[in-house]
Amino acid sequence: MSLTVVGSVALDTVETPLGKVEEALGGAAVYFSLAASHFTPINLVGVVGEDFPEEHVQLLASRDINLDGLERADGKTFRWTARYHDDVNDRDTLDTQLNVLESFQPKLSDAGKQAPYLFLANIHPGLQLDVLEQSKPKFVGLDSMNLWIDITPDLLKQVLGKVDCLVINDAEARQLTNEHNLPVAARQIHELGPKTVIIKKGEHGCLLFSADGKTFAAPALPLDRVVDPTGAGDTFAGGFMGYIAEQGNTEWETMKKAIVHGTVLASFTCESFGPDSLAAVSREDIARRVAQFETLTRF
Amino acid sequence: MSLTVVGSVALDTVETPLGKVEEALGGAAVYFSLAASHFTPINLVGVVGEDFPEEHVQLLASRDINLDGLERADGKTFRWTARYHDDVNDRDTLDTQLNVLESFQPKLSDAGKQAPYLFLANIHPGLQLDVLEQSKPKFVGLDSMNLWIDITPDLLKQVLGKVDCLVINDAEARQLTNEHNLPVAARQIHELGPKTVIIKKGEHGCLLFSADGKTFAAPALPLDRVVDPTGAGDTFAGGFMGYIAEQGNTEWETMKKAIVHGTVLASFTCESFGPDSLAAVSREDIARRVAQFETLTRF
Repeated sequence: MSLTVVGSVALDTVETPLGKVEEALGGAAVYFSLAASHFTPINLVGVVGEDFPEEHVQLLASRDINLDGLERADGKTFRWTARYHDDVNDRDTLDTQLNVLESFQPKLSDAGKQAPYLFLANIHPGLQLDVLEQSKPKFVGLDSMNLWIDITPDLLKQVLGKVDCLVINDAEARQLTNEHNLPVAARQIHELGPKTVIIKKGEHGCLLFSADGKTFAAPALPLDRVVDPTGAGDTFAGGFMGYIAEQGNTEWETMKKAIVHGTVLASFTCESFGPDSLAAVSREDIARRVAQFETLTRF
Repeated sequence: MSLTVVGSVALDTVETPLGKVEEALGGAAVYFSLAASHFTPINLVGVVGEDFPEEHVQLLASRDINLDGLERADGKTFRWTARYHDDVNDRDTLDTQLNVLESFQPKLSDAGKQAPYLFLANIHPGLQLDVLEQSKPKFVGLDSMNLWIDITPDLLKQVLGKVDCLVINDAEARQLTNEHNLPVAARQIHELGPKTVIIKKGEHGCLLFSADGKTFAAPALPLDRVVDPTGAGDTFAGGFMGYIAEQGNTEWETMKKAIVHGTVLASFTCESFGPDSLAAVSREDIARRVAQFETLTRF
């Protein structure tokens, strides 16, 4: 079944201990779509400026990503610049230029509206609410960030009341609930709305919680070279949602396998600058690494 | 098969966000022995002072821990005082009084020498070398710490050349190898001697590496209340080595199950101040939590 994602499309300049890339294709909706495109038809809703390179459009189109919802606005594309520490779980954002993202008003295309699965990547919670009013999906996933927890907590809680699944990192889960213990924080988030809570822990993997008390823990795949973790979280979410949309159900067994597929896809993203390696992998590469994950965790 | 551990016996004063305990029974050899005693006959080699409470001796004896190697020296027992942060992966040591530990010269009892499995808990690497000269075990595990990596790196490398397995935390693995990436650091440690490397990551679980390229990842059990993590790492090592000694082999499948048993025992240790809950659990409690671990990770 098809899936729609609403979120940022960016040009990323990133420095890590292993090198640097300038103005690479990036943004949450991009990494999410590329990951999900391995599993299911995906509609990307976002905005770019007049300067957005045609080759990036072609890369997305080559993965059969529906770009009807990709608006081209007057002005420049959103730009993000960051530097990662030796501990690649840690980074400093050096510069953020919102540009066309500042006045972005997401509009779902017809295909976007009809998709039974929807993911609201990290944008202003007011815009996330707008999108929710444009469609009636069967299952909605949400990402957010520390900024919105800080400055628009009430609006964010309104959104949380309307979604099925929150994908969030450990620091954000703690900030949102003011609770350090992650299982307890997850239960508090269930009470705000989402019956499914996924807490991402970067290189330490993630935890999946259901409101009826089930928990699944997945380590990250240990990698010899983490070239650039930019987009790994969005890739993970795209793999997770894409797998669920492909399977067409949100049973617990499906959710767990979706977590594993998200984890595997995120590992590919970490192995190159930008989304190149993510875009290049085949379904066979994914299956091989899922088998590797199984070997890693089965006893 | 029997197992010997050499390490500290302490009186711990610990404050965590959930409370405080004064002069509780502690020390690496104590947590290790209590954990291992669930699986196999265990010989504790350590030293206490004249002030060491008789009730602590009785607790250890009640778990059938052989105390022939527990020396009672003139002076006071080793004392350690620490305060944990809200993030219980983080703590400040407030006070360390070595007392009788300062002049400790471990002497293995006959039973201690004959045990085919030996664990050298964190003490001065010179003493660890002394112990290795007293016996010819089939499999030796080792723990160490940042202090010895800093001040006696050459001596520590001598010890590493003589042991089969290193159990170390992530920060120490990075410090020892000057390499941030954990799989790469593990390979460097293999080259120093240990064919088995276990990297502990606190609440994020652990990674097991074998020199022939196999990896196993185990999350920690998510706990609603982490009362006091003191001794969790030593408990983990005791559960790991105890399970291996019980099975009597170091096959990869055994190692993985041993990691799971160590993880499960460590979870009990975190649920109370001191070693009380660890000492009180039954083999059935352990089996139940191993099943819970399986549910947590199987997909």
